Amino acid sequence: MTGQVVLLTDFGLEDLYVGVMKGVMRRIMPTVTFVDITHSISPQSVREAALTLMNTYHYFAEDTVFLVVVDPGVGTQRRPIALKAGGYYFVAPDNGVLSYVMRGIDTYEAYELNKSDYWLDDISNTFHGRDIFAPISAHLANNTSIALLGDPLAQIAQLPPPDLSIEKDKINGEVIHIDRFGNIVTSIGQIEIISPERLTLSPLFDSNSESVPIVPSKAIIKIHGKTIHTINRAYDEVQRGQTVALIGSSNFLEISVNQGNAAKRLDVAIGDRVELLIHA
Amino acid sequence: MTGQVVLLTDFGLEDLYVGVMKGVMRRIMPTVTFVDITHSISPQSVREAALTLMNTYHYFAEDTVFLVVVDPGVGTQRRPIALKAGGYYFVAPDNGVLSYVMRGIDTYEAYELNKSDYWLDDISNTFHGRDIFAPISAHLANNTSIALLGDPLAQIAQLPPPDLSIEKDKINGEVIHIDRFGNIVTSIGQIEIISPERLTLSPLFDSNSESVPIVPSKAIIKIHGKTIHTINRAYDEVQRGQTVALIGSSNFLEISVNQGNAAKRLDVAIGDRVELLIHA
Amino acid sequence: MTGQVVLLTDFGLEDLYVGVMKGVMRRIMPTVTFVDITHSISPQSVREAALTLMNTYHYFAEDTVFLVVVDPGVGTQRRPIALKAGGYYFVAPDNGVLSYVMRGIDTYEAYELNKSDYWLDDISNTFHGRDIFAPISAHLANNTSIALLGDPLAQIAQLPPPDLSIEKDKINGEVIHIDRFGNIVTSIGQIEIISPERLTLSPLFDSNSESVPIVPSKAIIKIHGKTIHTINRAYDEVQRGQTVALIGSSNFLEISVNQGNAAKRLDVAIGDRVELLIHA
Repeated sequence: MTGQVVLLTDFGLEDLYVGVMKGVMRRIMPTVTFVDITHSISPQSVREAALTLMNTYHYFAEDTVFLVVVDPGVGTQRRPIALKAGGYYFVAPDNGVLSYVMRGIDTYEAYELNKSDYWLDDISNTFHGRDIFAPISAHLANNTSIALLGDPLAQIAQLPPPDLSIEKDKINGEVIHIDRFGNIVTSIGQIEIISPERLTLSPLFDSNSESVPIVPSKAIIKIHGKTIHTINRAYDEVQRGQTVALIGSSNFLEISVNQGNAAKRLDVAIGDRVELLIHA
Repeated sequence: MTGQVVLLTDFGLEDLYVGVMKGVMRRIMPTVTFVDITHSISPQSVREAALTLMNTYHYFAEDTVFLVVVDPGVGTQRRPIALKAGGYYFVAPDNGVLSYVMRGIDTYEAYELNKSDYWLDDISNTFHGRDIFAPISAHLANNTSIALLGDPLAQIAQLPPPDLSIEKDKINGEVIHIDRFGNIVTSIGQIEIISPERLTLSPLFDSNSESVPIVPSKAIIKIHGKTIHTINRAYDEVQRGQTVALIGSSNFLEISVNQGNAAKRLDVAIGDRVELLIHA
Repeated sequence: MTGQVVLLTDFGLEDLYVGVMKGVMRRIMPTVTFVDITHSISPQSVREAALTLMNTYHYFAEDTVFLVVVDPGVGTQRRPIALKAGGYYFVAPDNGVLSYVMRGIDTYEAYELNKSDYWLDDISNTFHGRDIFAPISAHLANNTSIALLGDPLAQIAQLPPPDLSIEKDKINGEVIHIDRFGNIVTSIGQIEIISPERLTLSPLFDSNSESVPIVPSKAIIKIHGKTIHTINRAYDEVQRGQTVALIGSSNFLEISVNQGNAAKRLDVAIGDRVELLIHA
């Protein structure tokens, strides 16, 4: 084990929630180390957290424990779970937040967390991050076997995938994220750059789909009334302040403004439609 | 010692202040580890920091050093202090920010930090967090005896407690915190859940007061013109978008909106009055 | 080496970028420790990052590695570089962001990072922080010789210094930073406090300039139509809510409001002019 717990929540950094979870974990395992992915997931947005986790976990060392708490159902009958998959450990409420990381993973072990010996003594109805998920994560990081923490589960909750449909000449997707810079991340991915004149799209959530070739100089992108002709390689290939489409760092189609804010410029929000015409 | 310093300030994360304090501490003790509670205390809000500290410190391992800097009087005659209490160490300006953690603690040691050998060489008039409090915290984490850092103090500054008064059928309190989700935390606590039909209130800042029984299904909460009938157990016991009262994770009465923002919905701010009618 | 990497970026904490860089580094060096200066540099503001770095790095232990990513030219021909200077290591794009830390440092080693063996396998066009700068920083922290990481460079990019001109009775500067509290930091520095009645100004970016004596009680500061008579020692020397000029913790002239927000009160922005009349 790496002794590393990586946190992803919607708790924000303004309150005491994240700090208390770390205090609880370090009391169980004094040498545990932490990395925060982000605590700024939109409140209760399970899908946003699922997408963020999918795009990050594989950059971490194997055996890392991911503590993922976006938990609108806290205090109800939704199950707390732990998952071992792809060489990593994940601890979360069973609301679908782990479903995207399991894409393409055939074998996994899932457990319902029902052994209260590994929890805090007092369990609140509003903060299982502190009372259940944090102590479980620390015990996992500290080499406690996952099988001791609960009973096996055959299945975990699944979210529907982001919208992505492929027609003859057109790919339809949606906006799935807007980052700090106003870059617009779409569901059109994953796109591999084969050469300057050849990309291939392999739909992320449909492993049976054939990959689709795209010639970047012939591509046309339509989003919220704006049309962009061509997929560029870097922000700086267009003038400062101009709109540009390119393949982002997680291999999704992104729309940006060079040194500007594309989401504000185009007045785009998460869930908005995007079209990619590929044989123009 | 745990070698752990836990930080709580109003410095924000936008500026260099927090990072510089950590750099100073790690230069003194290369193996020191950090946890941030929050740096988003409202600027100069000593009481908000005192309440946050009170609700967090006991989740950390004993011997943890808490570095608490909300310091409107920096550069004046207010004293820098260190406190050993309840098995923990606290370093802060003597402006009352440590007074709530001492509630219920009978024996403590307090020191005025006046031994400049343990400070940085140059002392500014505006950033004692960097120049005094951070190096002192690192020396404490590194096993320097607290008695070497200053001269004993008989008393430290006290803040008035949050408003809480108990009448025959009514408990009067105030809003003491609003969290990222818009949950409204009140001074009505601490409330212990004895059973689904029985709660008990033991006023936090009045250890002589008798505890008060509350029947949750008969409770009525009034806040800013809104009346809530009953205290629920979990957000999800009401419809999405409905207002709900429950016992929060720090055992205070809270008002929330299931998957919504109660503070915005009810237009509530810190300091607003709240009433709990207990024999309706 | 300290095994410590200190991060300074414009990536924000809302997205996955900072967490992924830390995951990449910890996979290369499991015992690496991190300190964040800030990730809230204004998007693409190279100068703001350069100033922040200049005011922080010397508080850290020698051998610390600084990972500085404010990179509007990512994906273009701008060079990635590593710098050894003043006993520290710096990793950044060659856009001037490191130029202010080199002020007053005579000997340094700079390298163009062109040895892809030390990068991630796949290099995106939009996130060299993850693909190049983070792995290079981890290798440096892990004792890899800087000379292995690239070819020597004779010069690195330089930014123009902040405006500061000294006339007979007047010093002209500009606003270079506004902090969370609304404190207005100016380019008028560095100012050393010799005694209560004597300051000396040694222009930071002009080592040939003679130092200028200032009598604080005779100084007059003009900024955005507001005139302040005298330089005080501490916020609390003026009434709550009053404007005050003083020497900030980085030894620049600052304008503040005691327990208030000076930038909002005076409607001041970065780049605004400030005058200091020194023989009133």
